[in-house]
Amino acid sequence: MQVNLSTVREIRLKSRPLGVPTPDNFELVSTSLHAPREGEVLVRNLWMSVDPYMRGRMDEGPSYIAPFELNQALEGTAVGKVIESNDPNMQPDDYVKSFFGGKEAFVAKASEVEKLNPVLPLTVAPLETYLTVLGAPGLTGYIGLFCIAALKPGERVFISGATGAVGSTACVLAKAIGCYVVGTAGSEEKRLWLERELGVDAGINYRAPHLESAVAKAFPTGIDVYFENAGGDQLRVALDNMRTFGRIAFSGSISQYNNTTAPSNNANLHNIVTRKLRAEGFIVTDHLGQFENFHRIAADLIHAGKLKWHHTVFEGISAVPQAFVDLCSGKTFGKSLVRLSSE
Amino acid sequence: MQVNLSTVREIRLKSRPLGVPTPDNFELVSTSLHAPREGEVLVRNLWMSVDPYMRGRMDEGPSYIAPFELNQALEGTAVGKVIESNDPNMQPDDYVKSFFGGKEAFVAKASEVEKLNPVLPLTVAPLETYLTVLGAPGLTGYIGLFCIAALKPGERVFISGATGAVGSTACVLAKAIGCYVVGTAGSEEKRLWLERELGVDAGINYRAPHLESAVAKAFPTGIDVYFENAGGDQLRVALDNMRTFGRIAFSGSISQYNNTTAPSNNANLHNIVTRKLRAEGFIVTDHLGQFENFHRIAADLIHAGKLKWHHTVFEGISAVPQAFVDLCSGKTFGKSLVRLSSE
Repeated sequence: MQVNLSTVREIRLKSRPLGVPTPDNFELVSTSLHAPREGEVLVRNLWMSVDPYMRGRMDEGPSYIAPFELNQALEGTAVGKVIESNDPNMQPDDYVKSFFGGKEAFVAKASEVEKLNPVLPLTVAPLETYLTVLGAPGLTGYIGLFCIAALKPGERVFISGATGAVGSTACVLAKAIGCYVVGTAGSEEKRLWLERELGVDAGINYRAPHLESAVAKAFPTGIDVYFENAGGDQLRVALDNMRTFGRIAFSGSISQYNNTTAPSNNANLHNIVTRKLRAEGFIVTDHLGQFENFHRIAADLIHAGKLKWHHTVFEGISAVPQAFVDLCSGKTFGKSLVRLSSE
Repeated sequence: MQVNLSTVREIRLKSRPLGVPTPDNFELVSTSLHAPREGEVLVRNLWMSVDPYMRGRMDEGPSYIAPFELNQALEGTAVGKVIESNDPNMQPDDYVKSFFGGKEAFVAKASEVEKLNPVLPLTVAPLETYLTVLGAPGLTGYIGLFCIAALKPGERVFISGATGAVGSTACVLAKAIGCYVVGTAGSEEKRLWLERELGVDAGINYRAPHLESAVAKAFPTGIDVYFENAGGDQLRVALDNMRTFGRIAFSGSISQYNNTTAPSNNANLHNIVTRKLRAEGFIVTDHLGQFENFHRIAADLIHAGKLKWHHTVFEGISAVPQAFVDLCSGKTFGKSLVRLSSE
């Protein structure tokens, strides 16, 4: 595997989307790289992660992470392979994780990339799972359930966005400690995957009519913990079914990210008072020290055939715009990934 | 002071209000009492508390406390005086606190009332303050700040509904430990009371234009703790000004209680994620064991002239309907009380 340093493509944000992104918000540009200098490595990216939070970075204005700059390569998590190294800590063929996702290849200081030491054989958990169930999304599920919501064995858990990497990891972790788990999905196909492949106690299609009664029926005595990935209707219905002293881990609200007007939310927030709920937001990057604990349990669950994943794979860097269009339109199934190159 | 057992009046809920209550939702009825039997006391009520949470009990449907029954006397906190006792633990002229608020007088088991032992001379903190700053509302301020939001000295605190008994106690407690305190009020008169009498760092009239910029100006580096009594716009603006890892104590949302449609709330809940906020609802009755700690510090603050109160007093049981009308229309200033009888 080689890199032609004079024709390396990167995907840039050309304009800020209003609502769901469109392909013309992006631009594919050919650039050139210098050969790695002392302390630097040349990396060819293999997989790029396309995540809901990245939609937020396409807007202007402050958040927990800076907006993408216009006419600059998108940033994002990626796994790749070292092609050439001018640093004693990295060797050619090392796998690395980095935040230089929007590029086919890059040169960076060795300290800016992280050597990836697989916790399972790549035949069992392939490289791209380190961007999904074994990566930050999987860790997000772990942190939300255990560090934020303090989930206990036997509790009743409601998980929105359950077919994504965050939600599906949360489902499996909650089942693994003996909880009753109900997840939501956006189609009948995804709902069946939750029940048949992931083994949740019940899947609910949130686009089907009667979301209220489906959730109430699934939780006749109420919800102890709600893992919030959705916002909007699903949050409202969850709030209406929370038990007293219930907890809500706020991980995201994907249904709201493409709003062009002020977020309209009919959630009955007063239930927070009357049911004495605790709701807490979190960002996984504050909890990276938990990766080792998480990997230990996740590896066991993959071995046992319990932790599964569904990826939507887009081919090549020129497919990145379509990946965002589909992700933000709810057309993808499971984690969205772009294969930037094959080994 | 006597009680004519054959003509004791009580105020009943005749119909469930839609939106703000009207006088014809209530009915004043003359009843008779039996003389106290063994283990019972006869109590003449002196003061009845009229609280925002009671509006919730006028609706049907489950909450943390059962709805008021139609054609039954309203319940509510009251202080009164024992007139006759058939129980060795209670003597005539003892002051008692009870939940039999909607009646001029009542007969109950001695175990159903609580003997009131003033923590300060009644000339300094009169009897009715045990329904306001020294009662459950004051304790609510204490619990919300310290047990729920874990307020620390020096932090920046935003308190909505700051002229009520809950909010004003919270303001004074937060100032007492060295916090920067900004409170909201519904008129210029109330705003000035906050600044001049209660000594907060800034008062904000939430009905004035430019609530957003007033709050942003008062908190140039953001809010550490928000004490939520208001809902609606004030919650939204608070969320938009929270610091990372900020905490919100959900005590109530009075602006939403008279909604006849589903609560519309434009609060930007996604800030809970991006700023990693913790929001927790609570009900003071789960924390009554803290009364002793609270009374110790509150008595000191009253002695020092720092903990002050503003009451809106309605005269006689026939004024109870008007008290609810005014309370729910935002016309009252400070805690609403009905003087059921003079000593």
